Amino acid sequence: MASMQSDSIKVLYRGWVEAMGANPEMTLDEMRTLFDHWGDVTGEPGGVDYIEVDAGGVPAMWAIPKDCNEDRVVICTHGGGYVVGSMYSHRKVFGHLAKAIGCRALILNYRCAPEYPHPAPVEDAVLSYRWLLDDGMKPEHICTAGDSAGGGLCTTVLLAIRDAGLPMPAAAMPMSPWYDMELSGGSLITNAAKDELVQEGILASMAEMFLGSASPQDPLANPLYNDLAGLPPVYIQVGGDETLLDDAVRFLDMAKEAGVEAKLEVFPEMQHVFHFLAGAAPEGDDAIAKFAEWVRPKLGL
Amino acid sequence: MASMQSDSIKVLYRGWVEAMGANPEMTLDEMRTLFDHWGDVTGEPGGVDYIEVDAGGVPAMWAIPKDCNEDRVVICTHGGGYVVGSMYSHRKVFGHLAKAIGCRALILNYRCAPEYPHPAPVEDAVLSYRWLLDDGMKPEHICTAGDSAGGGLCTTVLLAIRDAGLPMPAAAMPMSPWYDMELSGGSLITNAAKDELVQEGILASMAEMFLGSASPQDPLANPLYNDLAGLPPVYIQVGGDETLLDDAVRFLDMAKEAGVEAKLEVFPEMQHVFHFLAGAAPEGDDAIAKFAEWVRPKLGL
Repeated sequence: MASMQSDSIKVLYRGWVEAMGANPEMTLDEMRTLFDHWGDVTGEPGGVDYIEVDAGGVPAMWAIPKDCNEDRVVICTHGGGYVVGSMYSHRKVFGHLAKAIGCRALILNYRCAPEYPHPAPVEDAVLSYRWLLDDGMKPEHICTAGDSAGGGLCTTVLLAIRDAGLPMPAAAMPMSPWYDMELSGGSLITNAAKDELVQEGILASMAEMFLGSASPQDPLANPLYNDLAGLPPVYIQVGGDETLLDDAVRFLDMAKEAGVEAKLEVFPEMQHVFHFLAGAAPEGDDAIAKFAEWVRPKLGL
Repeated sequence: MASMQSDSIKVLYRGWVEAMGANPEMTLDEMRTLFDHWGDVTGEPGGVDYIEVDAGGVPAMWAIPKDCNEDRVVICTHGGGYVVGSMYSHRKVFGHLAKAIGCRALILNYRCAPEYPHPAPVEDAVLSYRWLLDDGMKPEHICTAGDSAGGGLCTTVLLAIRDAGLPMPAAAMPMSPWYDMELSGGSLITNAAKDELVQEGILASMAEMFLGSASPQDPLANPLYNDLAGLPPVYIQVGGDETLLDDAVRFLDMAKEAGVEAKLEVFPEMQHVFHFLAGAAPEGDDAIAKFAEWVRPKLGL
């Protein structure tokens, strides 16, 4: 049974849905201000330093846990439909991940839509990866992680890295990833009554802004239309009550078929990006701990 | 008239009062978790790095705005009745202050009551000041700031510094300071209906924990019983709707009588530590900007 503490993310999401419902003409700025509070439900990791940096032209924030192994990096891409969210809203959740792994996190403030539609986000993520390599970081000591749209991005960046002929990072950890720009997953309907935030309307609106003039079948915008061969090991975590559940399920099948070491874990009764509960509810801490346990040996830790 | 955005701090406080009312047996841990969310109403300053440090035995966090003058420091003491709050809950509000001044902030995680009653907080603050001096910082390039109980502490630390024969910092900026451990201010009654958070009950409970075996007239716990001569310039900001308004008014009179350059500004219709609205409502930004404008020349900036 879901912990009492995990209710806080439901309360947060209900508040957003209510605010959006009460203000159908909500501006982009207002929506961004709303989603800036995503991290309010996350406990403070503590013992982590945060240093803003220009990562090869991409604004970013280092999250550096005390006594971590600074030769290992997780590149983190925040969620928010490629439209909202930032390195600030996701500071704590990615701080928890870095602390659990014992490495640095590079939290990207990649360019967002509608000002910068696809492929700006994935281009920025590749730029930051090149910047790490140019700085002497070894690809086998780098992994990626991200939530929601950032879960898509932490996956598509690997496909772009592959296509660019760059060496591949060691692993990827998508959290509640959004892959399907056609919104064709069955769980969009079957989990609609349980998911407190992610409904077809908001997804369609964000997909439109993100895609711009690109096709919803563009293989770097929607990896369900890409060949997944050559991807490093992928460990996806998703909540059982999510409308995006089927994005993860379909990606897993495709990845396995392409010979990728892929793993999916569904956390019962959990909401979209329940990882935000880290430091505040056991389910969040459990998920982060499982990611860390899985990825540490892959990074040589 | 108060801005619409400034309502968020009223909503926060009402939520706390409701939660405490619904759970009269609330544990200390639960109360601390509640107050950990103080900073949720604050906008992210941005362009500020946060680095945890051992400040002479006192856990602390540097807030370092990009391109600031690192030779100038504001020592920041958080509020929360000497019982709750932390360097994390106040990260953003003190980040705003440091950014506006163009200096570093040293945000203290001083020992709190009831585990560590008076004089632990003021002793920790003095330790951190000695640590800065030992590190080569000039006293005339250091100022103090703090809110609520931390507003008391950013004042009493100066009295302790004076008593220890140490050179005096350049200035102090108490925000909605709590000085009076006897709870004898008239505004406790006259503003009771307007103040959404600070009522006699919570103050009495916190004073008891903070004082431990000390007297409510202890001159380092309650500066209204101290001689204020020798203090550097003090600029107090307080909300017009605060029950603690009279703490500031009485301190101002005493300071002026003792020959201190003292200034008080009352912000109409504002709640306790409305400075938390920085980055989110004009009143918060205005208050921070006024502090910065006042203190910059005193720090030689």
